[in-house]
Amino acid sequence: MSEIYHVDGELVDRSEATVHVDDRGFRYGDGAFETCRAYGGTVFLWDRHLDRLETTCETLGMPAAVPGDLAERIRKTLAANGLDEAYVRISITRGVQPGTISPAEAVDPTVVIYVKPLSRGGFDGEPIWDGPADVESVETRRIPDQALPVDAKTHNYLNGILARLELRNSDFDADEALMLDCDGNVAEGTTSNVFFVEDGILKTPHEGTILPGITRGIVIESAESMNIPIETGRYERSQLHEAEEAFLTNTTWELRPIGTLDGTPIGGGPITDQLREAYDERVEKRCYQSP
Amino acid sequence: MSEIYHVDGELVDRSEATVHVDDRGFRYGDGAFETCRAYGGTVFLWDRHLDRLETTCETLGMPAAVPGDLAERIRKTLAANGLDEAYVRISITRGVQPGTISPAEAVDPTVVIYVKPLSRGGFDGEPIWDGPADVESVETRRIPDQALPVDAKTHNYLNGILARLELRNSDFDADEALMLDCDGNVAEGTTSNVFFVEDGILKTPHEGTILPGITRGIVIESAESMNIPIETGRYERSQLHEAEEAFLTNTTWELRPIGTLDGTPIGGGPITDQLREAYDERVEKRCYQSP
Repeated sequence: MSEIYHVDGELVDRSEATVHVDDRGFRYGDGAFETCRAYGGTVFLWDRHLDRLETTCETLGMPAAVPGDLAERIRKTLAANGLDEAYVRISITRGVQPGTISPAEAVDPTVVIYVKPLSRGGFDGEPIWDGPADVESVETRRIPDQALPVDAKTHNYLNGILARLELRNSDFDADEALMLDCDGNVAEGTTSNVFFVEDGILKTPHEGTILPGITRGIVIESAESMNIPIETGRYERSQLHEAEEAFLTNTTWELRPIGTLDGTPIGGGPITDQLREAYDERVEKRCYQSP
Repeated sequence: MSEIYHVDGELVDRSEATVHVDDRGFRYGDGAFETCRAYGGTVFLWDRHLDRLETTCETLGMPAAVPGDLAERIRKTLAANGLDEAYVRISITRGVQPGTISPAEAVDPTVVIYVKPLSRGGFDGEPIWDGPADVESVETRRIPDQALPVDAKTHNYLNGILARLELRNSDFDADEALMLDCDGNVAEGTTSNVFFVEDGILKTPHEGTILPGITRGIVIESAESMNIPIETGRYERSQLHEAEEAFLTNTTWELRPIGTLDGTPIGGGPITDQLREAYDERVEKRCYQSP
């Protein structure tokens, strides 16, 4: 647990890390959100996380909300907590505004940074997950792009929370919920993207119905550079059930094999292993071998 | 503006009305929400608001989150602010929990009550709105029921906020955004339900794609008891453009005629007037003429 938070420009003790109840982040979930990893004191893929944070803030109509010194605030927060290997969460809300739902153009954003220890997976480390994920497909459908732009990562997280709530009565003791889109195609996990191998081809749902994760992007790039055949498209759940390999991606889990889907065993395999190794190498090169 | 808030069981000054940044209400918009009116010191239709709040909390998997003394807390907050005619907002979040997105079963909810002066409309009063609403239909589609249950009123409000953001570039200086559902039928305003009159019949979108508002329910009951022909169903936007009368409903606005839709004049009319009068009478009887 983090002891020192960064709230609204200041390092504060955990007990003082509060926001006003009139903050639109609290009232409406009206804010942008990003989760990063620090490895060896370096925030991995910071440029991509910053890009997405800016995109989300633009989508929310507050293009200038990301503070210019955000990287510095993160460094200070990591240092204050004495952390090199860490989970980093950044929230930027529209702040306190008068009135009700219509946002005012003038924004005084609330910026919150939270960090906690998270040991490195890969290479010398242990994966932070206990083992392959047991996944269950749920009834809750992914919110479509036309209702909430899918490439915005926001504080409106109830869609995924309701999906996870369905796991309470899971027959499979699942630790991730797989959501379909409103047309019934495979979309994503509540906090992860999904990949699977069919006929030796790596497949993942295309953009437009999913949050295009940063780890997902790296995996696609790695596959392309390693000449692993890859395709994005629309897929049925049955294809995933019959996959040769399958795995989930997100910033925290990195690449995590799917052990079972709805009780059907799938597991990782040679392609998953190759891609995990490539990811670990990238972390190693970018975060531990700086000149 | 309210000076005294009720936060987590205590009356506090506005400056102290805060929640922890780890509160799931802030992190994920993981909370239930209700807006009521107090007329003459009485919270109008309290039983219905309480029912919906309980329904939302059940949907969110925290059925016992509504505190037993909620009505008493509201009374205390109104009294502390010296208000009889007021807007009342209640938030119940899942509170601070360890871990990330998956909610723990044990819930210590955060309960926040906010009140502000809002003078009575109707009868002797002035409507709180300036005049009939100018409404513009927007591209943002209403989140479908299969992604977020439409009868839950939650802190995930970005769908409506994005719809309102589209009005920033409105040609019509609109003050409410009309959303269609994902099939292209009329759904609702961002904070209001919509009614219109076609061939002398009062029509309103059926449940299943909209938040079934409490004011909407009262209007339907009034129409039935007054023998105004009424029907619920799926309607196209063009039907609304050609309507004989149209109005919006919500707790704050009560019944508010639609002056224009996308620049096309509509306005209220005899049926709207009859229903407004019936609403005012109900407020009068329930809140000002107690025995």
